[in-house]
Amino acid sequence: MKAAILKQLGPLEPFHLVDLPTRSPGAGEVSIKVRATSINVVDTKIRAGMGDIAPAGDIVLGCDVAGIIEAVGPGVTRFAIGDEVYGCAGGVKGRDGAYREQMITDARLLAKKPTSCTFEQAAALPLVSITAWEALVDRAQVKPGETVLVHGGTGGVGHIGVQLAKALGAIVHTTVSSDEKAQLAKKLGADVTINYRARQVVQYAAEETNGRGYDVVFDTVGSDNIAASLEALAVNGRCVSIVSLHTSPDLSALHMKNARLDLVLMLIPMLTGEGLERHGFILENVARLVDAGRIQPLLDDRVYSLDELILAHDHLASGAAIGKIAVRVS
Amino acid sequence: MKAAILKQLGPLEPFHLVDLPTRSPGAGEVSIKVRATSINVVDTKIRAGMGDIAPAGDIVLGCDVAGIIEAVGPGVTRFAIGDEVYGCAGGVKGRDGAYREQMITDARLLAKKPTSCTFEQAAALPLVSITAWEALVDRAQVKPGETVLVHGGTGGVGHIGVQLAKALGAIVHTTVSSDEKAQLAKKLGADVTINYRARQVVQYAAEETNGRGYDVVFDTVGSDNIAASLEALAVNGRCVSIVSLHTSPDLSALHMKNARLDLVLMLIPMLTGEGLERHGFILENVARLVDAGRIQPLLDDRVYSLDELILAHDHLASGAAIGKIAVRVS
Repeated sequence: MKAAILKQLGPLEPFHLVDLPTRSPGAGEVSIKVRATSINVVDTKIRAGMGDIAPAGDIVLGCDVAGIIEAVGPGVTRFAIGDEVYGCAGGVKGRDGAYREQMITDARLLAKKPTSCTFEQAAALPLVSITAWEALVDRAQVKPGETVLVHGGTGGVGHIGVQLAKALGAIVHTTVSSDEKAQLAKKLGADVTINYRARQVVQYAAEETNGRGYDVVFDTVGSDNIAASLEALAVNGRCVSIVSLHTSPDLSALHMKNARLDLVLMLIPMLTGEGLERHGFILENVARLVDAGRIQPLLDDRVYSLDELILAHDHLASGAAIGKIAVRVS
Repeated sequence: MKAAILKQLGPLEPFHLVDLPTRSPGAGEVSIKVRATSINVVDTKIRAGMGDIAPAGDIVLGCDVAGIIEAVGPGVTRFAIGDEVYGCAGGVKGRDGAYREQMITDARLLAKKPTSCTFEQAAALPLVSITAWEALVDRAQVKPGETVLVHGGTGGVGHIGVQLAKALGAIVHTTVSSDEKAQLAKKLGADVTINYRARQVVQYAAEETNGRGYDVVFDTVGSDNIAASLEALAVNGRCVSIVSLHTSPDLSALHMKNARLDLVLMLIPMLTGEGLERHGFILENVARLVDAGRIQPLLDDRVYSLDELILAHDHLASGAAIGKIAVRVS
């Protein structure tokens, strides 16, 4: 079975295509014939050197997978051979990644893939959809009629964030960097688009909310943007960020607004083994939203193959991609 | 009517005892014959120079009040003349403070005082009880069996935090600075006391929770302690802080633990005019808990009078007080 491995971690480490032995699924596991995966920022960060959460040995990265069940281990009742599934199901410590033709994973992490999607589209969804769900549904608990600011509305997590906030009944504002991306964000359902290069956060937060600030800010950008997100909040607001390592924003705005900051690391169930079934549950709901046309995955024009992973990673790092970058595996 | 006023803000500004005219309560207001008030950290901070949230004109500080209703304005049905009440009911922008013999306030901020308390004890409760309630009940939503760390278990907010966490069914750990305070915290219901001068947070959080960390950390100390509080959290934990102005902790621990940081500024309803009735509701519940013996106010030995306010403020600033500092007004 063909797999793309890293021999060690490092920002410039190449992938090596090798032949790995196949194995059978254990209790609670399934074997997936991998049809597609997609690139997430966390894959590039782990590759660059996050040894604490990286798989060991011949390192096979890749969190997201879409494929076909080809074997079912003892105790698995939710899936049968031939089922088309998707999930954020590996690529971290103790779990096989998806950069391979056959992947063994815990069945609880999977759901049946949306029927209206290609495998490439389905593989683009799991990590970003679960992240957006945990941020907007579980943490911020967005209510209909609330005004939600999603940073980076055409990015990987952002484009799902815009659509999910809309599905929750929110008035959705989103930041973009160009008129082209503004058009795209509008198509995804954004009510208001904000070119963050043209206005500072304090300015647009005041102008676009009649001085109230946002009920919820979903920060998908991180670094200096967290401080900006806190400034954009309304009194009693909630900020959710997914990017905050080595970031030390001044908390004064959060305090004076009696507000909340949630940090979402959606890898936690995979890393701890607790709460795996919640991810399968979320993806079942996401599949229904996708098939109902309420959420659509946004794929960058270029789809890569398993021997072009380095190009796919570089493309993500370039910042030029729109939406998700998919990789066709078989 | 006698009142203690500041002529301007500043850390060394003295109080002046003056005679102010009385007035009648307007719609939704009541007039209270003030029997006691208590000193809170926020009173000292406003006095030192928080002009944004200070009352204007002849500045009368004092958030907490306990007293007797002596007049009821139009539309007030919850109280009648002669009722003994308590509340965190003024002393900020736009609202009369309690350092006076007669205080007009919005009736929604008040509740009947616990019958088992003196006025001095009742006046010690409102701000700190509402703060602890908002932190542990509304924000952290502490569940029975969870392990909760309350920083500063014999301090103003901390001593209510310990008792409220216990009432919520939590296993309560608390930090103290001496054996004497440890004994006191145990009497209040703490299951475990930790002398924070003897062990670093990472050490005691690991030792006292079998390496898991705390489900909830209630930071009543602020500054460097916020970073320590984030370190002490378990995966999926919740930290609530009430002291975070001009503080910039590294958020890495919060992120890697998939955790939450809530900042509570309990003055928000008084400052915005929204949610005032919630504070009255909380104090009704607190009164029941006090009369049932589940929460007891902890008063420092020395009780001051209205012409000793400067001594009371200095005593709080000294850090030597145990529990709350009460002021007898009439």
